[in-house]
Amino acid sequence: MKGAAYVGEGLLKTVSTDVEPPGPGELQIAVAYCGLCGTDLHIVHGHMDARVRTPLVFGHEMSGTVAAVGAGVEGWQVGDPLTVMPLVWDGTCSACLAGHQHICQNLEFVGIDSPGGLQQRWNVPASIAVPLPADLDLRTAALVEPVAVAVHDVRRSELQIGDRAVVLGGGPIGVLIASVARDAGAHVMVAEVDATRRSLIAGLGLEVVDPSSADLPAEVERWTGGVGADVVFEVSGAAAAARSTTALAKVRGTIVVVAIHSAAREIDLQRVFWRELRVLGARVYQRSDFDRAIDLLRRGRVPADALITGVVPLEETASAIDDLGAGRAMKILVNVAGEAQA
Amino acid sequence: MKGAAYVGEGLLKTVSTDVEPPGPGELQIAVAYCGLCGTDLHIVHGHMDARVRTPLVFGHEMSGTVAAVGAGVEGWQVGDPLTVMPLVWDGTCSACLAGHQHICQNLEFVGIDSPGGLQQRWNVPASIAVPLPADLDLRTAALVEPVAVAVHDVRRSELQIGDRAVVLGGGPIGVLIASVARDAGAHVMVAEVDATRRSLIAGLGLEVVDPSSADLPAEVERWTGGVGADVVFEVSGAAAAARSTTALAKVRGTIVVVAIHSAAREIDLQRVFWRELRVLGARVYQRSDFDRAIDLLRRGRVPADALITGVVPLEETASAIDDLGAGRAMKILVNVAGEAQA
Repeated sequence: MKGAAYVGEGLLKTVSTDVEPPGPGELQIAVAYCGLCGTDLHIVHGHMDARVRTPLVFGHEMSGTVAAVGAGVEGWQVGDPLTVMPLVWDGTCSACLAGHQHICQNLEFVGIDSPGGLQQRWNVPASIAVPLPADLDLRTAALVEPVAVAVHDVRRSELQIGDRAVVLGGGPIGVLIASVARDAGAHVMVAEVDATRRSLIAGLGLEVVDPSSADLPAEVERWTGGVGADVVFEVSGAAAAARSTTALAKVRGTIVVVAIHSAAREIDLQRVFWRELRVLGARVYQRSDFDRAIDLLRRGRVPADALITGVVPLEETASAIDDLGAGRAMKILVNVAGEAQA
Repeated sequence: MKGAAYVGEGLLKTVSTDVEPPGPGELQIAVAYCGLCGTDLHIVHGHMDARVRTPLVFGHEMSGTVAAVGAGVEGWQVGDPLTVMPLVWDGTCSACLAGHQHICQNLEFVGIDSPGGLQQRWNVPASIAVPLPADLDLRTAALVEPVAVAVHDVRRSELQIGDRAVVLGGGPIGVLIASVARDAGAHVMVAEVDATRRSLIAGLGLEVVDPSSADLPAEVERWTGGVGADVVFEVSGAAAAARSTTALAKVRGTIVVVAIHSAAREIDLQRVFWRELRVLGARVYQRSDFDRAIDLLRRGRVPADALITGVVPLEETASAIDDLGAGRAMKILVNVAGEAQA
């Protein structure tokens, strides 16, 4: 069997993987597809060397079927379609005890802190397996995890029907947030600097602006009739975008910090005070977000086909990472099973 | 009659004021006491020259009694004790229509945008007058407005019984927030750089630390058993304090921005994301905050006597402003009526 592993020093290799039977409480998964995301780029580029142990089979946006059922696992049959919610919490820290297990203070993120889904056979604790409906194809199902991120972000914002939401950054997560927010009844505007991405976003029927040429606060002012946006999602990670958030939100509006910011950012706290704004961090997801994501994908409420700009075999994972890093793609899936699949 | 007015170019003068009868819908107030606050300092120091029209009788933390009742005003008698909630909203902007009149987009702040309480007779719309109970002395009642600020800040934080709250900045508003939070059942730690203020705060039975010598995040970590603070109130306006807030709050903790920050501040958005923090702006107050403030003062739940470090006649308003600016006082009241008063 095969897998893709980060072996250190910025190198990704296709490796042979042993197939151990699933241990007690585990499921063995025949992985079908695994999507690549920004975190995977950071791993391969060596930015997370202090955290990961090499060689690391990474990948955490996947779909597959049950290949074998470990001792003591109930409710699963070989062949059942599934995905994984890649979080393992300690259950004992103050965050867990307060009900926030998804942001456990000692969270293990599967695919970063332990082996992930870029391998043909993958043993995982049955507790993190999430069943998929039979009528959701496995290619589309590889998007459940990033859609769950978007669902979590929108849920955290407490967005209401009829709200006007601005999404700063039109990459995969930005487009998914825009789609989920639109499905929840909001009017959505996406700000994105890349022209190719803007075309894709416009093609989805979403308002889109180029913040590098437009006066974004003026655009949002016009678009909201002088009120300001109900919700602003900061998905870009850019300093200028973070700085602009407070100029876009209405009185008592909400700013959701979705992106990873590599350095402290200048924020206009005077505006936070003056308009009684609310700035919320939003990270990963809870189980209900996964269930909602599956439902949205099943009902075709997320533009899965438009977002998946490529599907490559396992051996081409390295070049796919290069394409993503160069901004030549939105979402690339790795066909881990290595055969023609539904 | 007399008043204290900012006449421009950093100058404050005692002036003679005409006494017009109250117009329709107005009350004429015999002002008893008027407290001086940071905003008054900014006015007198000329920082708000672009906003104020001179000569401006300022002052917005006051107590008094009804001296005359204008046509059409019901429910008030001459001699009734009262204070003023110094906000006039337009009632038609999107903030007002959404129920946030106190942060109306065109808010008139009485005492800044129109004449205030540093005069012996003061005509105000009856709609902004707030009755005082007979058993609250007028000296203490001059604190209702700043206590209402603190009540609003604590209410906005959604602080719960048993929470641990850190207050950054131990000036009058910081001490009032700490007092209101303690009365609401929280454990409170105040961070204050000034030794005299720290002594006063310790004398009130509050935990107090010097953030310029202590490692504040480590202190808060220790104090909260490794969890982090439930709520952090940023009252200092200092860049370093703003920067520190995200290091002090627990997972899903709340940071309330109370202070006015004169420039954009560096904020660790990565920590906002990682811990799913919540940053809230909190400005002025709503009417229920005034009612709660009156109740707290009446029941002696706020250290009014400890905070009032001086009472001066109207003619000494300028030197009182100097003392406040030099950090030689906490709260100074002006005895506007100019006689021995209760």
